[in-house]
Order: sequence, then C-alpha cells, then structure tokens
Amino acid sequence: MSLPEITQKLLAAKKQKGLSFADLEKILGRDEVWIAAVFYRQASASEEEAKLILETLELGPIYIQDLTAYPVKGLGPIVPTDPLIYRFYEIMQVYGMPIKDIIQEKFGDGIMSAIDFTLDIEKEEDPKGDRVKIIMSGKFLPYKKW
Amino acid sequence: MSLPEITQKLLAAKKQKGLSFADLEKILGRDEVWIAAVFYRQASASEEEAKLILETLELGPIYIQDLTAYPVKGLGPIVPTDPLIYRFYEIMQVYGMPIKDIIQEKFGDGIMSAIDFTLDIEKEEDPKGDRVKIIMSGKFLPYKKW
Amino acid sequence: MSLPEITQKLLAAKKQKGLSFADLEKILGRDEVWIAAVFYRQASASEEEAKLILETLELGPIYIQDLTAYPVKGLGPIVPTDPLIYRFYEIMQVYGMPIKDIIQEKFGDGIMSAIDFTLDIEKEEDPKGDRVKIIMSGKFLPYKKW
Amino acid sequence: MSLPEITQKLLAAKKQKGLSFADLEKILGRDEVWIAAVFYRQASASEEEAKLILETLELGPIYIQDLTAYPVKGLGPIVPTDPLIYRFYEIMQVYGMPIKDIIQEKFGDGIMSAIDFTLDIEKEEDPKGDRVKIIMSGKFLPYKKW
Amino acid sequence: MSLPEITQKLLAAKKQKGLSFADLEKILGRDEVWIAAVFYRQASASEEEAKLILETLELGPIYIQDLTAYPVKGLGPIVPTDPLIYRFYEIMQVYGMPIKDIIQEKFGDGIMSAIDFTLDIEKEEDPKGDRVKIIMSGKFLPYKKW
Amino acid sequence: MSLPEITQKLLAAKKQKGLSFADLEKILGRDEVWIAAVFYRQASASEEEAKLILETLELGPIYIQDLTAYPVKGLGPIVPTDPLIYRFYEIMQVYGMPIKDIIQEKFGDGIMSAIDFTLDIEKEEDPKGDRVKIIMSGKFLPYKKW
Amino acid sequence: MSLPEITQKLLAAKKQKGLSFADLEKILGRDEVWIAAVFYRQASASEEEAKLILETLELGPIYIQDLTAYPVKGLGPIVPTDPLIYRFYEIMQVYGMPIKDIIQEKFGDGIMSAIDFTLDIEKEEDPKGDRVKIIMSGKFLPYKKW
Amino acid sequence: MSLPEITQKLLAAKKQKGLSFADLEKILGRDEVWIAAVFYRQASASEEEAKLILETLELGPIYIQDLTAYPVKGLGPIVPTDPLIYRFYEIMQVYGMPIKDIIQEKFGDGIMSAIDFTLDIEKEEDPKGDRVKIIMSGKFLPYKKW
Amino acid sequence: MSLPEITQKLLAAKKQKGLSFADLEKILGRDEVWIAAVFYRQASASEEEAKLILETLELGPIYIQDLTAYPVKGLGPIVPTDPLIYRFYEIMQVYGMPIKDIIQEKFGDGIMSAIDFTLDIEKEEDPKGDRVKIIMSGKFLPYKKW
Amino acid sequence: MSLPEITQKLLAAKKQKGLSFADLEKILGRDEVWIAAVFYRQASASEEEAKLILETLELGPIYIQDLTAYPVKGLGPIVPTDPLIYRFYEIMQVYGMPIKDIIQEKFGDGIMSAIDFTLDIEKEEDPKGDRVKIIMSGKFLPYKKW
Repeated sequence: MSLPEITQKLLAAKKQKGLSFADLEKILGRDEVWIAAVFYRQASASEEEAKLILETLELGPIYIQDLTAYPVKGLGPIVPTDPLIYRFYEIMQVYGMPIKDIIQEKFGDGIMSAIDFTLDIEKEEDPKGDRVKIIMSGKFLPYKKW
Repeated sequence: MSLPEITQKLLAAKKQKGLSFADLEKILGRDEVWIAAVFYRQASASEEEAKLILETLELGPIYIQDLTAYPVKGLGPIVPTDPLIYRFYEIMQVYGMPIKDIIQEKFGDGIMSAIDFTLDIEKEEDPKGDRVKIIMSGKFLPYKKW
Repeated sequence: MSLPEITQKLLAAKKQKGLSFADLEKILGRDEVWIAAVFYRQASASEEEAKLILETLELGPIYIQDLTAYPVKGLGPIVPTDPLIYRFYEIMQVYGMPIKDIIQEKFGDGIMSAIDFTLDIEKEEDPKGDRVKIIMSGKFLPYKKW
Repeated sequence: MSLPEITQKLLAAKKQKGLSFADLEKILGRDEVWIAAVFYRQASASEEEAKLILETLELGPIYIQDLTAYPVKGLGPIVPTDPLIYRFYEIMQVYGMPIKDIIQEKFGDGIMSAIDFTLDIEKEEDPKGDRVKIIMSGKFLPYKKW
Repeated sequence: MSLPEITQKLLAAKKQKGLSFADLEKILGRDEVWIAAVFYRQASASEEEAKLILETLELGPIYIQDLTAYPVKGLGPIVPTDPLIYRFYEIMQVYGMPIKDIIQEKFGDGIMSAIDFTLDIEKEEDPKGDRVKIIMSGKFLPYKKW
Repeated sequence: MSLPEITQKLLAAKKQKGLSFADLEKILGRDEVWIAAVFYRQASASEEEAKLILETLELGPIYIQDLTAYPVKGLGPIVPTDPLIYRFYEIMQVYGMPIKDIIQEKFGDGIMSAIDFTLDIEKEEDPKGDRVKIIMSGKFLPYKKW
Repeated sequence: MSLPEITQKLLAAKKQKGLSFADLEKILGRDEVWIAAVFYRQASASEEEAKLILETLELGPIYIQDLTAYPVKGLGPIVPTDPLIYRFYEIMQVYGMPIKDIIQEKFGDGIMSAIDFTLDIEKEEDPKGDRVKIIMSGKFLPYKKW
Repeated sequence: MSLPEITQKLLAAKKQKGLSFADLEKILGRDEVWIAAVFYRQASASEEEAKLILETLELGPIYIQDLTAYPVKGLGPIVPTDPLIYRFYEIMQVYGMPIKDIIQEKFGDGIMSAIDFTLDIEKEEDPKGDRVKIIMSGKFLPYKKW
Repeated sequence: MSLPEITQKLLAAKKQKGLSFADLEKILGRDEVWIAAVFYRQASASEEEAKLILETLELGPIYIQDLTAYPVKGLGPIVPTDPLIYRFYEIMQVYGMPIKDIIQEKFGDGIMSAIDFTLDIEKEEDPKGDRVKIIMSGKFLPYKKW
Repeated sequence: MSLPEITQKLLAAKKQKGLSFADLEKILGRDEVWIAAVFYRQASASEEEAKLILETLELGPIYIQDLTAYPVKGLGPIVPTDPLIYRFYEIMQVYGMPIKDIIQEKFGDGIMSAIDFTLDIEKEEDPKGDRVKIIMSGKFLPYKKW
C-alpha cells in the first residue's frame, strides 16, 4: 500500500516529535481516530484545524490545502490482507446478518450512517489480557418512502 | 442470499411468537447479537442453550444438533450489497488505517481478536435523530516472536 | 437472475390484471418506483400498504408478512450485464468524479444519502426522440467530525 | 486514484483563482457537470471551449490538445470505494430492477442513453437538512429489430 | 450455463421440426440473429411475432407472454469460456483501442450504439477455408454537451 | 490506461502531421484498423512496413525494432470501462449465444478465427443519424477430431 | 462442479461395464482424450460416433441428440482448484512467456490453434517414477494483415 | 506487462547479436524453453550456466546474481489476454476434465508434476499449414496416504 | 457451502455413532486428517479402506464407489470466509515470502509437494491456553532443468 | 512483486555477507522464519533486535525505524502465482474442511491463532527424497459467548 506523500510527511513529523495520536487529541481537541483519518486523507480538516496540525508538527502552511481538500476515500484492496484490518472485514462477514436484524428490530428498516458517525477506541485493562474497545455511533437513517 | 433451513425455521417461529431478539436476551441470559448469530448459524450453542432456545420457540428437540454444530462461517459475497451491512465494509475501507494506527499506538504490534470478542448494539435516543451505538470488545493479541 | 417467489407472484398478478406501476401509483398513493422496489423486495411496506397492494392484485393476506419484512437488498452481480441497468453503472464510472466535485463544492465534504432518498422517472416527449428523465433527491449528509 | 497530469493542472489553477465549477458554468455557458467532466478527461471540448477554459484559468494554449482529445473513459475500480460515488452504485444495486421495469413500462424494450445524456445537480434547501437533487435526462433508445 | 425453460422448449421444438434459424428468417421475415436473440431471451417479440414463432414451432399460445416480455439481458460470466464466444471478447481486447480511434476519427467523440444496432452473419465460401462474415451496423451516438 | 512510449510517439507525430488513419491507409496500402493496431502494439509490422510508417511520420529508423516486435496483446481490464469499447463487450454478452448458434448452424462445431481475421470500419450516411458499420471476416475453424 | 446429466449417465455406464477410455479408444477408433471430451460435453460427436458410443455403453439411442449437439464449452471457475488441473494453469503462468517467444521465433507472429488441435496422453515408465507425457499439436495460425 | 530489467537486458543483447533461443540451446546445452524461462526470471541458472549465458551475450558478470537467484514465479494476470498464451488457458478450460480422467485412469489419484517437468516445442511441417508441437513430460505424483 | 450428499451421510453416521475422527484413526489405521479428507471427498480410499469405513459407520457397501472415486478437489471460494480456514490463508499471505526464502535456502529452487504430503494435528496442552500444532511434511521437489 | 526498499537492502547485504537466515538465527537468537518476516516487513523488531540485525549486516542505524515500525501485512495477490507459495493455498483449499473438523473435534468451536503463532521449517533427510517439515503452533482461541 503506497501512502500519499502528505500522509508520509505527517507521519514522519509526528514520529520525529515523539507524539502519539492521543497527544494530538489533547492538543487539537478532536478525537484521535478522526485526526488519524485526516492524516490518511480519509477526512478533511477546516483551515484552522489544518493550521493547528501543521504548527504542532512544525510543517509549513503550504500543506493546508492538502489537509482541507475533500479526499477520494477508501483503502482500495477489496479484501484487506492486513490481519488487524481484516478482522473488521471478518466481523462484517460473521456478524453482518445478526447486526442487521438487531438494528432493524430496534429501529425499523434503515441503516446506521457511516457519515454522521463517530468511532472511538479505548484500552480496557484486563488481567486475562487487555482488550480493545471500539465504540461506533452512527445516526439511524430510516428508508424514506415516497 | 439463501438462508439455511434451520435459520428460516427459527426466524419464522420467533416471528409467530412475536418475540424480539431483545426478548430472547432476557429469557436466555445471552446477548441478543450472540443469539442472532446462533440463529444465522454463525455461532454454536451448548446443549442447554439449544434446548432453551427450542423450547422458547416451541420447536422440537430434533434441532438441538443443528444449533450445537460448529458452523462454517461467513456471509459469502466479497463486497456485501445490502446497504446496512455495506456500511461496516465502508467503515473498514475508510477508517481501517486510522484504527490500525491507534490500536497499535496503544497496544503495540498485534490485532483485536474477532474470536475472543463481543459486540453490543444499543439505541441512543437523540432529538436530532436516534443513533445506533455499536460496542465491540476484543482481546488484544500481540504478535508472538519466536 | 432468479427472482424471489413473492416477486414472481406479484408481477404475474399485476400482468394478469393489466395494471402498470403507474396505475398502482394512483391506487396506492405511493410513487411507482417505490412500489416496484417493494415488488422486487428492495423496500418494505407497512401493514396497510401491504394489504392494499395484495387486495389490488387479489392476492391473499398471507403475503403481508413477505411485503413488510425488511429485505436483504442488492441485485448481486458486481457489474450488471443488462444494458439498461449497466448504463447507470457507466454514468457512475464516467461522471462519478465530476458529480463528487460539484456536490462537494455546493455542500462541503459529505455524501448524498441513498436512504433518505427518492427517485422519480418521467417521460419527456421530444420530437427528436422521447427522453427518460430521472430525478433523484437525497439528503446531504456532511461528514461528522468528532 | 491517480489523476492525469492535465486534470491536476486544471484543478490547481481553478483553486488558485478561487473559481467554483458554478462560476465556470457562467463564464463558459456550459453546465458545471460537463465542465468537470472535461477537467477529469471524461469529456472532450471543442477548440473554442478549450481555449476559453485555458484563458479563464490562465493556462497556456499548449493544453488545447489535451482538452480536445477524445478520452478513454471510466474511473477504473469495479466497485468504487469513495462513499459519495459508491452511493450511486448502491442506487443501481437496489433500484436497478424497479427502474428497468418503470422505464420499460413507459417506453417499451430499450434503454436510457448515457451518451445523448445530460446530468444536472441542484441544491434544494430544506429546514430538515438540504438535499442534493440530481436530474438525469437521456434519450430513450428502443431496441431495433432487424 | 443453464438456459431458461422457454429457451429449451423453443430449441427443442425447432430441432424436432428440423428447422434452422435461416429457415425461420424466411418464414418470419426477421433476421436469423434477431430470432435467435428472442429464443435466448435477449430480445422481445411483438405479439404477432410471438404468435408466428409459436405457430411455426407448433407450441401453444400460452408462451406468448414469455416471448413478449422485456428480458433481463446478458450471458453472465465476466470472461466467457466458450471458445467461439471468447473470440469476440479477444477481438475487443486486441482491437478495442484501434476501433475506438478509427470510429472517433470518422465520427467524433461518441460511440456505436448496441441498441439501435443490427448484426448479420454470412458464410463466405473460400477455397482456402470458408469464412465467417459478421456485419454490425450501429447508429453513431455523439456525446451530448450541455 | 497507460500507453507504451512508442504508441505515444506515433500518435503524437501523426497528430502533428495532421494525418488520419484513413490517410495512412492510402499511403501504406494497409487497412486503417490494422495500422492502428500496429500503433497500439497489438500487431507487428514487417521491416518495410515499419520503415514506411516511420518515414511517413518523420520518426527515426531506431523505432523499427519496436514496430516489428511481436507484442504481448490485450487491453488488460477484464470489463472495459470506456463506453465505446464496452459496447463490444455488451454485444458479446447479449448476442453471444445467438451468434454461436447461427455460426454453428451454418458451419458446424467450431469457431470464427480471431487470428486469420480482418476488421473494417465504414461510415454509413443516414438521414436519421449516421451509422457505424463494422465488418469482421474470420476463417471458420472446425474442431478437429482425433 | 456439477456435471451435466448426460455426463453422469455416460460415466456411470462406463464404470459399470468396467471400460477405460483406452478401451473406448480401441472400440471407437478415436483418441481417448477426444472421447472423454465428448463425455464431458466439450466436443460433439457425429451421429455414427454417438451411436457407437451409446451401443458400447448399452445406453438408448435417445441420447444421440445430446452427444451430437455443439456444446457451450469451458470448465467455469477462473482459477481451477483441482490440483491436477491447476498444474496446467501453473504451466501457463510460469512458462507462458517463454513458450510465446519460442513459438514466435520458430513461426512468426501468430498462435497455436486450440481448435485445429489434438492432445495425447502417454504413460512413460521410468524407474525413478513414471511420467505423464502430454503431446499437443496445434496448427500454427499466423496473424493476417489486411 | 512490465518485464524485469534483467529480462529486458538479456532480450536486447540476444536481439543485437541476432541469436535465437534455438542457437542458445546449441551453445548452452540446455533446452531453449528452459533458457527462455531463465531470461524471463521463471527459472534459476547455476553459476556456470549464468556465466555462459552472459558471456555468450557479452554482458558483464555482475548479472550472475540475477540469473542464479530463485525467482518469484508467475505471469500475474488471472486470465491472460495475449491470444497465444490464452490458448493454453482455453485448453485447460476445455480439456481439463478429460485430461484429469485419462491421467487418473492410467496412473491413479495424483497429478502430473509441474516441477519435475520438461516442455519441448517443435515445428511440424505440414502442407496444410505447419503445426506447433508441444511435448510436456512431468513425473506422476500419487497422492500420499498417511 | 453445500457438501456432497455422501459427505453428509458419512458425517451424520459418524455423529450418530458418537465417533470422533481420532476414534476412526485407531480403527482404520490411517491418520484422522486423511480420513476427514476422504469424508469431504478430497482424497480417495482403496476398496478395503472404503469397506472398513462403511462397515464402521454401518453404511451399506453401495457407497464404496463414492469413496474410491478420484474427486475433483478444492473448497471453491477464492478467499475463504470461515475464520478458522481463513487463518491458513492469512499465514500464506503474511509468511509466504519468508517461508519461500527459508525453504529455498535449505533446499535450492523448488517447492514442497502438496501431493507427496502429510499433515498432522496435535493438541499441545499449555497453562496459558492450549495450542494447536500442525505438522506438515512434504517432499521437496527441485525444479528440473532440461 | 515489488519489494519494499528496506527489504531489498537487507537481502542484498545478507547476500553479500554470505549469510543464511539459519546463520542469522544463531546470531540473533530468534527463529529464521521470524527474522525473514522482519526482512519482508511482515513483522516488527524491537529496537535491540533491529540494531543487532543492522550491525550484523553492517547497515547504518538509520534503518532502525524501518524495522521497528508496525507493517501493513500481506502479500497482495489474492491467489498467489509462485508455485511454492501456491502449494500452501492449495493445502488450505484441499484440507481446509478436514483441518477445521479435526481442530474443532479436539478443541471445540474456535480457531488456531495466526498471531500467537510460531512456524518452524526443518529439513528431513530421506533417501527417497528430502522432505520439508513445517511445524505451526498457534494458540487455540475459543469463540467467546456473551
């Protein structure tokens, strides 16, 4: 997977400054996942957000344009090969129909928005092995009849 | 998508009895998502769990075997066409790399298990439109070195 | 493409009664496209709507359940082979990026909903050859930041 | 998605001059969607149109050739990953058969042309959330018998 | 490849009566290729045409409906495996770009219609080996600007 | 689609000299389609043919080798996205089985060669809209029994 | 892989009579590979050949039609999973370009016909392990220029 | 298809020296197909073989390493588009099952090795058109039971 | 995934008799993995082995033929969706190149046979969680030069 | 397959120093397969491990960052074409279901981890031909119920 040049620049600067996305969350007042999505050009920042990101990383303002543009989104490969990312594909394969039924039982015919949507990641400490907690929250969109 | 015969039987009986998966959660003491996964033959029940499901739905014990068998799992179509299920595919496409980075920043090189894993669905009431909340919790598995 | 049994029944009854979808639009007070989507099990009717459809077609009430269920949606084949349907695929291939740019210029980063969405089809008479007019209207959904 | 060099040049010049496609529509007397299609090398301009575009953007006439050439068209990836563009794919997946039936009921066996075709995008203001309106108009082409 | 039931009936009846498509061409006053397309449910007949076909083959009028319906078209498999059909795929692969250039040089930016289209097949006798002659004639459709 | 360097050179020189493939047909005594196939490296020229092409375009003899080499043939993408080229794919999808039946009825079990093959393109003027005429002629090859 | 009914009948009858394809070769005077191709509906027999096959297997003459019809050919799955058949796919993957170069060096630009083609299989006894010998012979077809 | 740099160097040097693979066969004492496989980096040479190849082509010994390395093998595209190479894919599609049956009838359950394997290409002169003869010889490998 | 009828019969009989594959290993003197491969029609039994399997499961001798036939092998779906089976696909994706290098460093250019091959599965008890041990042993096959 | 630059550097340095992965195993105290996985950027080293690798290969410490980063994993092509790697794909195709059944019979419903996982490769000398022995050991992960 070849990353866009701007993504490589941002990741390298972040690494050099020894900042984690969690650090950036505190500085920028935005969730770390959303910030990472801006880095990977899957989300667009406002001009102020772009400035703040670039200043934090000591990168020049010439990149503002790159961060505020509305990106063409998506990883690309139809079935992801990276094991971490694949597990989310597997969850959709295995639990897709159960999720569909439960959501529709609670809300009616419609979907969970992936646009009016947030995603948080937390670390749950556990003596039997720490756990990754993912919390997704998406607006329910009922199918319109016309 | 053609469902297994047992799935069709279970769904029909559940419909006829007017039970939701949330109702079954109360009766069975298991999460509604997991119960739906058993219905869709993506998870296997213990013998007691199978009995309880069948009794609740007034289906004969001959189906115990169907519910306790270890299923071949997965929806099938590589890219799902159903809009509700597709959104989870899209989330993986758009937020896959950000999720990977955040998890690995918090935990190191490894993955979130999709096996030692739970998934809950809640309804968040919201005046601007109710929201679907999905909470995933999977054990972090660090890559073993050898 | 094999159609669901209920779809075949509905189409056959409609044919026998000599009704067009435009006729059904007048009787049911719903747009013909939406009604056709119910026939093809891509949309779900309310119980009254289902009753009305079945009465109009003189089909028994036992099918109410089929029409009110929330269907697993989507045609299936990745690239459609039917020339009429393919043209919509081609429009997305050829005009996808221009549409993306224009929508985002007018609205910001986000998408047109395909759920809070209507689609109408009109016949434009034209001496040089009649034209098909398709009007889509979907709510704009801005990407949420968090 | 890597854009052709000429597309990148045109988009950069347009950005620098602070012009929207709607502005270009007024200057050029052509619809903004069609102009964007020329930018993305999905449509070919006449020599005068090319000149006017280049003068407006203060780009040299050496690019006339690029804009008047007849392009090899199409986005490429079979299933688009960008959420905005994917929704059009989804519309074809979900409403493809209903659209086919309605068009053929109104016109007979044939298709809507994607060549003798126009596409307009309008913003519908709506207190519940603005809406994207897409109007497609394509000549109906009946299947020839011979 | 599983053929529709009506196709099998028509082919069987034609075989039993010892008729070739060329014979049917004489009887029906339509080209043999178009008639074969009706047999394979890739084209739709008028009611008179359907009657004439069925009478010629001594099949009952109950099949009129099958022959006049507007079919969902297309073979299905993305790359055909049958060698005779594959050669047309190969011609498109090898001569696609040259054909595109020549047509556009003669006509401008546009396409050859596959709808307002006829296709004839002739046998050219040749001492070095008979030749198959395919003559396609499709209306040129110029890209509309708007 | 990225063209080979030699193709780009040939097309640029041809454009600069204002020559059409039809002009080259007159100069070279070979059909324009075949010449275009040489340009796109889908056919190989003899040394004299290569010389004549290069002299006509005032390109140096160093390219002889490029034009006389036996190319690896084929466009590449499984389903073409360019609308003009796609129509030939569609013709094979829709009329593939009818063509197969007619050819085999006239010739027996075998195929039309795509190697011992010619393809001509003519413009048919027509008041209702000019037509593209494609004439293919391929040697019939009967299946050998052994 | 589901075999056509006639193939299953032929294979079952052959098994019951204890005949190998090599035995059939002697009886029918045709190569065993070709006979197997008829069994699998990849080749068409003449009426006498069909009769002789059916008589040998003591199957009724009603199947003559099945064996003389011109089949739609090809296995289907794009990459074969059966290890024996896959090896031929692998040979094409690994030795495809070398074979292309050698054939073209010996014959010029063209192909080996897969239609005017025979294939024989012999057993080579070898103390280090018997060997499978495959001999293919296909007419060379030079690309026609026009 | 982009060839490795070393392949391009070898092919260019061979061309310049006017050598065919058949000439190299005589010089190197290895079959021309195997030598071509080394050129295309599908087979690995010993150090002496590499030296001899490079000396013959007057290329420096720095390339020894390239020729003795164990290559990652395979052409790449799932279905080859080059007509000459495709025919081998077609042979596998059409004659795959017959070949499987004949080999297994002669040898039992197992495969023909594509590793302990040789492939020769001969020109058969024939007044009706020369023929390409391909002789494959692969060790039979019976399935091991354990 | 639909299993062959014989597989279903064998699995049902085995279940009813309460036998594990490990039990069958003791009775039949063959490894449990190989026996399971026979059940799933991926391996062929000798006549005695087939008899013994059928007697053990109290199934009639009419199935001998099914178990001794040489099956068409392979699961089918290109990327497996079942999580257990997918992990083997993932291992090949992640460790494929390292495995290739290590094997070739130890053995030279060649492959590990998947035919002259055995596979054993053991349970390693471990206080931190039991482990699955898979031992594969395949004959090394060096590439033949010729 | 294009390798990352760091992989090429590591492999070249290792070759020049005449070291095998087995040598590196002795020096680094890590298994050769895991070390090769670090080389191919499929596993991440600790800082000390990275230093030791780079010192052994006499490469500068600037590459530490490359070796300690958490890579995006996976080979890429869905079905591998290299014969050695393909055999592992084939094993999963042929023995996937038997392996699934045996593991689940021994452990219950769950999977073998590919993360808490080791893989060793040994050479088994054998007069009939040396054998490749692969030993995989993965923690069993039972499906969690919730």
